[in-house]
Amino acid sequence: MAAKNGSEAAEEHTSSAEIRSFFDSAPPLKNSLEITDKLKEFLDKNSLSADAGDGRANRIVCVTSGGTTVPLEQRCVRYIDNFASGHRGAASTEYFLKAGYVVIFLYRRGTCQPYCRSLPADPFLECFEFIDESHIKVREPHSEAVKMAISDHQNVVEKGQLLKLPFTTIFEYLQMLQMVATSLRGLGPHAMFYLAAAVSDFYVPWKSMLETDKNILLKKADMALSKYKMHVVVANELSTRNEEVVVVTGDEKVSVCRDKTQVGCDVEDPLIKLLVEKHAIHIVDSCS
Amino acid sequence: MAAKNGSEAAEEHTSSAEIRSFFDSAPPLKNSLEITDKLKEFLDKNSLSADAGDGRANRIVCVTSGGTTVPLEQRCVRYIDNFASGHRGAASTEYFLKAGYVVIFLYRRGTCQPYCRSLPADPFLECFEFIDESHIKVREPHSEAVKMAISDHQNVVEKGQLLKLPFTTIFEYLQMLQMVATSLRGLGPHAMFYLAAAVSDFYVPWKSMLETDKNILLKKADMALSKYKMHVVVANELSTRNEEVVVVTGDEKVSVCRDKTQVGCDVEDPLIKLLVEKHAIHIVDSCS
Repeated sequence: MAAKNGSEAAEEHTSSAEIRSFFDSAPPLKNSLEITDKLKEFLDKNSLSADAGDGRANRIVCVTSGGTTVPLEQRCVRYIDNFASGHRGAASTEYFLKAGYVVIFLYRRGTCQPYCRSLPADPFLECFEFIDESHIKVREPHSEAVKMAISDHQNVVEKGQLLKLPFTTIFEYLQMLQMVATSLRGLGPHAMFYLAAAVSDFYVPWKSMLETDKNILLKKADMALSKYKMHVVVANELSTRNEEVVVVTGDEKVSVCRDKTQVGCDVEDPLIKLLVEKHAIHIVDSCS
Repeated sequence: MAAKNGSEAAEEHTSSAEIRSFFDSAPPLKNSLEITDKLKEFLDKNSLSADAGDGRANRIVCVTSGGTTVPLEQRCVRYIDNFASGHRGAASTEYFLKAGYVVIFLYRRGTCQPYCRSLPADPFLECFEFIDESHIKVREPHSEAVKMAISDHQNVVEKGQLLKLPFTTIFEYLQMLQMVATSLRGLGPHAMFYLAAAVSDFYVPWKSMLETDKNILLKKADMALSKYKMHVVVANELSTRNEEVVVVTGDEKVSVCRDKTQVGCDVEDPLIKLLVEKHAIHIVDSCS
């Protein structure tokens, strides 16, 4: 973790050729226009400019939080991760806001959020219950923590003092950090970078990664059936996994597809029906 | 993903010496007694036994979901992860429950939960708002999804039809799967294993991992200051990171500790105060 001013961070050490190589080879951010707009709107709303008179009101910090992943495949299944709960970044964000700063919170998806530190692990399901058709109650031991989390969070977001930008990979993180740095360049010493994220110190160039091979999928399923003595293997391709799966047994390969004519129908609906039927037959066979 | 009956899963292929070696070298589960109790209570509540008459009412499935991590250090900072949103496992759990199954949901912490698939990414903060001191409202576009998530989830958990057990590492996953398999052994073909988790196919033996070295921490901080031309490096040890940090600048090293005499006081409170002071001085210095 380090505090650093302006857009100078990380640029001096690594050679500019290495930096160019990283950004040239990185998969482009899908939502870069949206992020640019959000940053511009956020800075405008807070009337942040380098030459405003009152230094205190004008201060901004970019807090980074959580670990980055280094993908090992382009269609990312495996990656190397740096563990970080995001607790330090979330807590620090609260204290910077309290000190009158405007905060850009660049955080790893799924990590700790400001004002949520004293909540249980799965607050959405653990803190609330329906008392009748239309009324929700906060479960008692959590009521103060829930109130603080929701209202304090809502307060700073609605006042425009906190902008939250999520990332997952090292590629997303460094590109987004560069965008933030560029947008804050004009603020000079009024901008601080508080780099609490646990950033991987290496990456695998995007182009050198292996693609998954569609053709070996069913061969692997057959192999798994015999090698692990499974009764059924459910095979799917990553890109179509929510549309179609193939149910492979010793006797047959059955393609199971989502019913696209019905709204909200998952491929798991016909899949589990088929497995439940097969299970019933297996129980009868085993018991007879 | 594979469906497999009883406790036979994964035992036939790998040699028993390899299996013994994995379980002997794994760090013991911290909460194994608690898990054993939960499993026993869950099976008792559902009157699950091998010789009950009605096959349908008696069926149980263990659904595994999400990826496992392979730690690369004992005090785990870096690990290799298998990406899996947990969507397949969560959706399948809903359909198994609908089909009358009792479900043990063995899931990676932080992944998709049953009945929560149509919620936004951070439902706790995005779906609710306080309308006054003590009343919460569900934000409109999400009201149906929230109602379904909370009430359906609450319903199956309270009826005792769904037991949720979270894991993170490959060590936790395989030890917990073994415990579930052992507890279901007596149910024979009535028990199904629906292995939707993305499990790492390797592990790093626990004893061979490097420990972090306390002594190099401050040397590294000094190195980072000059190498990356930071203004401040905030150094901390992993085990005491919420109690003490050292604020390192070119001139000095200042230890900053949490105020233990006050309830709910974080080390980030004095840390951010110190950084805000240093930032104010830096702005004045830069502008004069």
